[in-house]
Amino acid sequence: MPSVKPKIALTMGDPAGVGPEICLRALADVDLQDECQLIVFGDAALLDRCARVTGLAVPKLVVSVADSYESLAGPAVVDLKRIDADSLVVGEISAASGRASFDYIEAAIAAALAGRVAAVTTAPINKEAFRRAGIHYPGHTEIFAERAASERWCMMQFSPEITCTFVTVHCGYAEVPKLLTMERVLETIELTAENLEIIHGRQPRLVVCGLNPHAGEHGLFGEREEERIIVPAIEEARRRGMIVEGPLPPDTAFLPTKRKVTDGFVCMYHDQGHIPLKALAFDSAVNTTLGLKVVRTSVDHGTAYDIAWQGTASCSSLFAAIRLAVRLVGLRSPKTVGH
Amino acid sequence: MPSVKPKIALTMGDPAGVGPEICLRALADVDLQDECQLIVFGDAALLDRCARVTGLAVPKLVVSVADSYESLAGPAVVDLKRIDADSLVVGEISAASGRASFDYIEAAIAAALAGRVAAVTTAPINKEAFRRAGIHYPGHTEIFAERAASERWCMMQFSPEITCTFVTVHCGYAEVPKLLTMERVLETIELTAENLEIIHGRQPRLVVCGLNPHAGEHGLFGEREEERIIVPAIEEARRRGMIVEGPLPPDTAFLPTKRKVTDGFVCMYHDQGHIPLKALAFDSAVNTTLGLKVVRTSVDHGTAYDIAWQGTASCSSLFAAIRLAVRLVGLRSPKTVGH
Repeated sequence: MPSVKPKIALTMGDPAGVGPEICLRALADVDLQDECQLIVFGDAALLDRCARVTGLAVPKLVVSVADSYESLAGPAVVDLKRIDADSLVVGEISAASGRASFDYIEAAIAAALAGRVAAVTTAPINKEAFRRAGIHYPGHTEIFAERAASERWCMMQFSPEITCTFVTVHCGYAEVPKLLTMERVLETIELTAENLEIIHGRQPRLVVCGLNPHAGEHGLFGEREEERIIVPAIEEARRRGMIVEGPLPPDTAFLPTKRKVTDGFVCMYHDQGHIPLKALAFDSAVNTTLGLKVVRTSVDHGTAYDIAWQGTASCSSLFAAIRLAVRLVGLRSPKTVGH
Repeated sequence: MPSVKPKIALTMGDPAGVGPEICLRALADVDLQDECQLIVFGDAALLDRCARVTGLAVPKLVVSVADSYESLAGPAVVDLKRIDADSLVVGEISAASGRASFDYIEAAIAAALAGRVAAVTTAPINKEAFRRAGIHYPGHTEIFAERAASERWCMMQFSPEITCTFVTVHCGYAEVPKLLTMERVLETIELTAENLEIIHGRQPRLVVCGLNPHAGEHGLFGEREEERIIVPAIEEARRRGMIVEGPLPPDTAFLPTKRKVTDGFVCMYHDQGHIPLKALAFDSAVNTTLGLKVVRTSVDHGTAYDIAWQGTASCSSLFAAIRLAVRLVGLRSPKTVGH
């Protein structure tokens, strides 16, 4: 019995940026085709123009959004016809590009929610182009959170070097202590454990960081957030069978010796995890939101207008994002995500 | 005219830990003697016992605290006779060791304030031994801050990889926003600029980190601490001639490309700087307090009781601390620090 490869929706991103060319590279990559069936949500005419300009291969299989994907023989493009390929100015911010890139995302999420694809990987969009198109989402995360929300979710940055999840993310420094609750810390630990178990195929070893310098040093610094909030969450996670160490002093948590034996770091706030992530794994981290109704991974870079359509953009971050999506859906039952 | 080598007081640290053996190594190191004149503040009989146990060289020159250091021909030990060498139990926490290690520090600070030595480098002490001796300072920093305080001071962690100074350090996470003021940020920038100019012999290039994720992203996250507090401090520092970039998003501030062109990072809180420091320069960072009346540097490790008196303790952190002290006093006038 041949195993069915997961269908991964890949949004084309902002047409004027590097999205189209890295999608073309993904469609043409032999190794990726072994691992999944890629379905690019974008504009076929634009991909065609980009392929001619950059010398990359023109996609062979183009379908409409109404077509069935069941019998597709290989990687395909769902042609959403959202932008006029000839009038697009490469490397320029425009409302038309912003609107089109938003529509690709919406269509991909709809396909995922309907169980037609197993996951969505997103190419970069441009916030300013969104704004000009009157779209007021600051980024992918918020769109997915609204369309595919569940009660429990958290952000994860995954890389071979270091993987972090976040109890709080995009809020001000001063808001963090107010947002920390035992339930939220526990939820983040659980989402991390569940998803890293899917990725690694074994029980992951987690480290939970403290909030205060030296993890509070027994109440010397801070308001005992460690004892009041983080320790009870860790103890409950252990009772539920998870392998969790902490709360560790945030500065020694990421030492090389500790990183070697840790599958995931549960961080209390954005920069606690993003500082070591960027310092250690700048090019290789994949952004994903755990716990949504749709598995979603994302490239770690922007539209890079300055080098767009030259065929020189690196596709390593996109490929890593696609591969993480494949791993995240790997062990899910067809019932949960559909095929 | 021969140049006068700076006299560096070196406290022996907790007698039961690795302090004595790394001090012996420093006294015996030919290269260090070329750069400075080391004067160990400790117990001669104990150093003698440690030298015999570990096979290291017995110090040749022993003086009393009342003796003049002016005419010393080489590295010396100021014999404070604070501990009974024969009854000391190596590797054990004791009130006697705590008391002795505290007295070495006090004597060294007194010598520095009297202008008899140019700087103090400290070997590790043990907090619990301090506590048992009824000494309630949590560490060196607080002792120096009390004995040699000035109005402006800040902590610096210096390493060839990355150097950080701190606007706030040992306080709880939640207290940081309340402690940030334009004056305090400016003061920290200035202390950093002044001291790195002494160290490097040229104007340093500084990066100031923001407080919030993405440095607030124009008010999107946080309470505009960047615009209200950090930006005005940077602008004033620039008006005063300093080379300052920022406020940068804390996670991208420490990227490899940015580290290469930055002499010092001004950090808003403990873990913002300590996370990249520990991740990138775990073994090589030297702790120093800028702006005190006494130049003070410190090893970056503890008493390591488990390996004490075996002659195997690494002295690289101590040597780096001594060398930083030499550099920090290098361009000071004799009037300021005495010789």
